[in-house]
Amino acid sequence: MDAIIWENDHLRLLDQTKLPGTMEYIECYDYRKVAESIKRLAVRGAPAIGAAAAYGLVLGAKQINTTDRKEFLEKLEAIAGELRATRPTAVNLAWALDRMLMRVNTSSEQDVEKIRRVMLEEAHAIYQEDVQSNRKMGEFGQELLPNGARVLTHCNAGALATAGYGTALGVIRAAKEKGKEVSVFADETRPLLQGARLTAWEMVQEGIPVTLITDGMAGYLMAKKKVDCVIVGADRITANGDVANKIGTYGVAVLANYHKIPFYVAAPLSTIDMTLSSGEEIPIEERDPKEVTHHAGQAMAPDGVQVWNPAFDVTPNSLVTAIITEMGIIYPPYTENLAKICKPNK
Amino acid sequence: MDAIIWENDHLRLLDQTKLPGTMEYIECYDYRKVAESIKRLAVRGAPAIGAAAAYGLVLGAKQINTTDRKEFLEKLEAIAGELRATRPTAVNLAWALDRMLMRVNTSSEQDVEKIRRVMLEEAHAIYQEDVQSNRKMGEFGQELLPNGARVLTHCNAGALATAGYGTALGVIRAAKEKGKEVSVFADETRPLLQGARLTAWEMVQEGIPVTLITDGMAGYLMAKKKVDCVIVGADRITANGDVANKIGTYGVAVLANYHKIPFYVAAPLSTIDMTLSSGEEIPIEERDPKEVTHHAGQAMAPDGVQVWNPAFDVTPNSLVTAIITEMGIIYPPYTENLAKICKPNK
Repeated sequence: MDAIIWENDHLRLLDQTKLPGTMEYIECYDYRKVAESIKRLAVRGAPAIGAAAAYGLVLGAKQINTTDRKEFLEKLEAIAGELRATRPTAVNLAWALDRMLMRVNTSSEQDVEKIRRVMLEEAHAIYQEDVQSNRKMGEFGQELLPNGARVLTHCNAGALATAGYGTALGVIRAAKEKGKEVSVFADETRPLLQGARLTAWEMVQEGIPVTLITDGMAGYLMAKKKVDCVIVGADRITANGDVANKIGTYGVAVLANYHKIPFYVAAPLSTIDMTLSSGEEIPIEERDPKEVTHHAGQAMAPDGVQVWNPAFDVTPNSLVTAIITEMGIIYPPYTENLAKICKPNK
Repeated sequence: MDAIIWENDHLRLLDQTKLPGTMEYIECYDYRKVAESIKRLAVRGAPAIGAAAAYGLVLGAKQINTTDRKEFLEKLEAIAGELRATRPTAVNLAWALDRMLMRVNTSSEQDVEKIRRVMLEEAHAIYQEDVQSNRKMGEFGQELLPNGARVLTHCNAGALATAGYGTALGVIRAAKEKGKEVSVFADETRPLLQGARLTAWEMVQEGIPVTLITDGMAGYLMAKKKVDCVIVGADRITANGDVANKIGTYGVAVLANYHKIPFYVAAPLSTIDMTLSSGEEIPIEERDPKEVTHHAGQAMAPDGVQVWNPAFDVTPNSLVTAIITEMGIIYPPYTENLAKICKPNK
């Protein structure tokens, strides 16, 4: 169930809008197809859209019909701009594109065809490093889960949201691999139901017990002492440890805080944006009201109703118990501790 | 848009499962049709199912084929039991049936046909008193809303949930009637979307600005300072002021508390159950998992997923700023202050 597959000359993206009912890949030969797939959430999840965009840029590079390095680089920059504009919140998208451009710009290679090859290698590296990061996050993070842990998660931070294995769900997978019994509560995650459609599906496939709840049930679940900790992914983490993630995450964090339940965020360093000092600076995408008012083309609300549909919210660092990264588990104070591991990479 | 209409010889119930798309009445000549309508939420909302059940008992009384008072009363008791068993959480259902039976049992009337007439009068009284209670709640409650108030509500505690006017939405209507500008944020209220389908619809009809959000957005809405207070209805309030209401209410109450936003509950005295000392004693209905996994017959989650689907949760009195009743606004300490107004009625 790989979400992203590079096959010889093109990119295959699992169309996640059709899960769990249908498994269908989108065959991308054109970078515009990748951009469109990111925009309409056929591929989603911060690390996954980073990797997809990197491959998208590889496709774009093939579409630039020139042997002139300068002209090639100018056009590549424009294509990167198009890919970058697809979604504003997850920093991994910009991070991956910047890394690709940096690799090209710092290469002394003059031959455009060779540059294209270097780019494919770099996209593969981004992809493979993400899988490795998830494995390391799992390794570190699983230590936070006692045997028998009942974990609540929101949205999908699984294999489908990454190059594979998953961030939040990677931690759960790693705990299972260590022989621990773990069970999962999945918030369905309205409006687009990534919890119901994707997380529940991944966990069922994995044979990990999963119970689906509506987002409004999380509070009562905690009050009934049915959950031991929360683990979510992230779309962007700022230098002070504020976390942008799927809308609804903030509410879960407040509830966890009220019930004295640990609230963990699992994310690779590529999700950490040291250029922003706090979550208030993160651009929050607002999406089509129809995501809220319609399901499968059918209206669920009256005409004339206004809708507020932010795709993400920001959880302040004060509500985050720890951040699980591939470099280890980071505890507060985040400004200090994130700087220690992120400085060398910037 | 009356939810409940008594017409000559039968009861007409607006089928709320079909709103907002279709306005269709269920014509009930048989009390079993009323029971089924309550069970499948064609009629819902604590005060509304109380009134519907009272009329249902009137229908049941017509269906008892005897002139013998004793036999009649025995059979009536059995029918009341069937109606009572349809839903466990909202106390108004049991309250209305008890009131009907009490009226019959304390009447010295021997003629069964006359008893039937007395019962119809009592059902009308329950219905009309509910509308009056809502008006009074509105009158008292609107004083809590400053001009320009932005009110968040959960589920539907409107005209559709009562004999008319509404509890939480009645307060909002009353504020508008006083010339205040008010606007509403409606939680869509999964799984059955009473906020999207019913509250949004009522407010659009009323010309009150309404913005629909998913349940997971309530926290971010508060963090963004877009809401001034919360008003919800109730299905049962215990002697200490704990409040059972639609699942998700508790989470909203915790969020309101965290953001220092007042959390008001609007409910008639018929919703207050002085026989229970705390919310822990309230039976919480769990409903069909398909409410969560399916929409319009279409699966939104994978086969094999477990589901937890409590229809209600309990908000502890510590999170309730005030309870708006037809006797006035009750503030903490609730045990003391509820006893003052509820004693005479019990």
